[in-house]
Amino acid sequence: MRDFSLSDTIAAIATPPGEGALAIVRLSGKDAISIADKVFQGKASLNDLPAGSARFGKIVDTEGSVIDEVIAVVMKNPHSYTGEDSVEITCHGGYYSSSRILQALLQIGARQAERGEFTLRAFLNNRIDLTQAEAVTELVSSRGEMRHRIALEQLSGKLHERLRAIIEELKQIVALVELGIDFAEEDIEIQSRHEVNDRIRKLLGELRELAKGYRIGKVIREGYQVAIAGKVNVGKSSLLNMLLDMERAIVTEIPGTTRDSITETITVNGLEIHLTDTAGMRDKTERVESIGIERAGEIIASSDLILLMFDPTAGFDEDDKRVVDAIGDTPKLTVLNKCDLLEEAGRERAVKRFPSKIDITISAKTGENIEELKQSIYDSAIVDDEKVGTEVVITNRRHYQCALTAITELENAAECKEGSEFLADHLRAALNKLGEITGEVTTEDILNSIFDEFCIGK
Amino acid sequence: MRDFSLSDTIAAIATPPGEGALAIVRLSGKDAISIADKVFQGKASLNDLPAGSARFGKIVDTEGSVIDEVIAVVMKNPHSYTGEDSVEITCHGGYYSSSRILQALLQIGARQAERGEFTLRAFLNNRIDLTQAEAVTELVSSRGEMRHRIALEQLSGKLHERLRAIIEELKQIVALVELGIDFAEEDIEIQSRHEVNDRIRKLLGELRELAKGYRIGKVIREGYQVAIAGKVNVGKSSLLNMLLDMERAIVTEIPGTTRDSITETITVNGLEIHLTDTAGMRDKTERVESIGIERAGEIIASSDLILLMFDPTAGFDEDDKRVVDAIGDTPKLTVLNKCDLLEEAGRERAVKRFPSKIDITISAKTGENIEELKQSIYDSAIVDDEKVGTEVVITNRRHYQCALTAITELENAAECKEGSEFLADHLRAALNKLGEITGEVTTEDILNSIFDEFCIGK
Repeated sequence: MRDFSLSDTIAAIATPPGEGALAIVRLSGKDAISIADKVFQGKASLNDLPAGSARFGKIVDTEGSVIDEVIAVVMKNPHSYTGEDSVEITCHGGYYSSSRILQALLQIGARQAERGEFTLRAFLNNRIDLTQAEAVTELVSSRGEMRHRIALEQLSGKLHERLRAIIEELKQIVALVELGIDFAEEDIEIQSRHEVNDRIRKLLGELRELAKGYRIGKVIREGYQVAIAGKVNVGKSSLLNMLLDMERAIVTEIPGTTRDSITETITVNGLEIHLTDTAGMRDKTERVESIGIERAGEIIASSDLILLMFDPTAGFDEDDKRVVDAIGDTPKLTVLNKCDLLEEAGRERAVKRFPSKIDITISAKTGENIEELKQSIYDSAIVDDEKVGTEVVITNRRHYQCALTAITELENAAECKEGSEFLADHLRAALNKLGEITGEVTTEDILNSIFDEFCIGK
Repeated sequence: MRDFSLSDTIAAIATPPGEGALAIVRLSGKDAISIADKVFQGKASLNDLPAGSARFGKIVDTEGSVIDEVIAVVMKNPHSYTGEDSVEITCHGGYYSSSRILQALLQIGARQAERGEFTLRAFLNNRIDLTQAEAVTELVSSRGEMRHRIALEQLSGKLHERLRAIIEELKQIVALVELGIDFAEEDIEIQSRHEVNDRIRKLLGELRELAKGYRIGKVIREGYQVAIAGKVNVGKSSLLNMLLDMERAIVTEIPGTTRDSITETITVNGLEIHLTDTAGMRDKTERVESIGIERAGEIIASSDLILLMFDPTAGFDEDDKRVVDAIGDTPKLTVLNKCDLLEEAGRERAVKRFPSKIDITISAKTGENIEELKQSIYDSAIVDDEKVGTEVVITNRRHYQCALTAITELENAAECKEGSEFLADHLRAALNKLGEITGEVTTEDILNSIFDEFCIGK
């Protein structure tokens, strides 16, 4: 079971494993500075430093052997990430130094932090609310600009502020209704049911507006799922490779992007787009290509959009028809490939030969119209009337589900024909659900499930 | 070509790629603080902070959009790693934040650092010598305690000091000999050839002592190569697994240790020991096991020690003989496995049945005597008269080769029967080689080859 007490001092390595120039070991808690000082040898004691000081020194183990030369950064309650006294020790990278430093700290009184425990402490110390805590995992895992920006807005508290306003208004309504109950016998009406209903409906509008953003928020958060479908040799792999090569040219500085996986990610205007070749595995034998047809069904079902590819040099045949049937009603963009093989006039004729409306003609070989294709994919992901400006968007399923329940309860409240007690119950239920989003109302279960998604050291 | 100028300001991400809680973007150079300040928004300007300050703030891009919330640590010339003004920006982990922050810094005047360029600057600014610079890569890649300790001693300048003393003495001898040449026509002998020779021989002794440590230094740096040999079913895989399982129990906190590779590493008393199963791949089919026999020759040739395993329940047969022949003169420890299957008396009889002397009886199944086996491996790696205490050890091939050449030149000098000009030439050549180790005498080629081994951001 997770430890929700704030009485001990936690420590963890906060940088990813692997060989890098630097690594950070992080400490937080009331004894963070004195524990760090026990292993730190520098010109001054860490205990004597003002908040916001960084000092060079050596870390020694309990037997006095030097582990590494480091910079220790001292931060003090409440002006730190966690709101507690904190020390960040920047040491040489690689496995050894950071592990040994952590070990030394654990030996003299620190406790190994659990996943997300630094952020949990920031929450428990009221530095941030739950929406902000959740934004931290988002920030760490985001690759696209849009997702990053929304996470950052959430971290800076914009969703929190918007929810706070709604919660405050709801609290006032609840207070009025409950006051009405108290004074009911004395026949004093604090506020008319009609007025209360108006206020509830106004809140409902705001909450629905917030919830409406979830589809787009989900696309931004989880990326837009696009499957490339078409018969064998229509150019699915070539198109995927072309899209990836253009991406690679842009994002070479981002490591870890591998072309071995079945689903590849590109970003278009900052939106993450996950591309899956329905042939399953590229550059493999025909056998695998045929297995692909069977897997295609699953992939199509889990996609937001299908790129349906046709080959004008082969014409529309039974194989194409099978693919079209497999796609069914899933939203699609119809793409005529290999247009480099056709004259201008031939293209027009070819387009007319296909039963489906052709949305775009491209050449996966020469790259013709590939930018236009990317823009079309983006446009189908981010529908005009949902355009993401600076407004607050719900991206998180947990928030969405709480908001939906709150909306249902408010609808029940608005339509409540029974006594004020029932009305108050609905309003309280809505309030609780909104409080769950921000963390005003929490159970340990909610906290566990949220912070278990974090990495150690965060 | 590498840029050896110190006029610009360099920047790089200094933490490994991957999702972690925190990442560091590092800046060094005369404009480091002012460049960082242009993208930093905090309560105070970074320009106004005293050295050794850490401040919370936001990083904004050139268009004013917030990239992340960070801690910026300001260090000033000469009290920084590089000896220059430096800023370390600790941001949220993951790919996006650190890449965007780096990008923003590059847009406003910083240059992407090359491999090892921060450490190169520390060298060029005379903060450290080359032996210390080289220790930095060692520190980052070390996993074993011994290697780490020696790297740390080298970083702290112990090898540097020892070499400095030798170089200073050699410089004095050269000066005397050259003075002698100048005064030769006047028939004044500054110091007798005999006295000079005594001093050269004394230096030779010290250098040979230093070079002698290389074998042990190499073992510490590169680890001790141990091959497990024996016929099919003698228990090679079981032994390897037993050794690794014990290791895993100790080092579970170190990520990246995989059992899929052919060579596995354990540490014994802080020494890295690389174990290779001569069967090539474990847990595979018999076919692979038989391929193993052919590969065994290569593995044995590149090993420092062979664990030759026998099976007392099978007795010594033709297969054992083939393995013994394959090992030839390579140093070995003879191991009788499966002793859990034998009674005490049976063991003694079994030991006598084998033509080779049995060094140790073990059970790879129950773990019996496995600790003793590990100690025996360690003892054969670290021979008594080479025991590594706190003395300075050469671990680096470049240092060793320079030292060997210097020794040869000093030997030539000591035996030189020709004129003082020739003597002086040998001494100068030795001096140059020693200067190459510390970096007093360097060419850009040497610097390139050293710093190309670094990671970006170091």
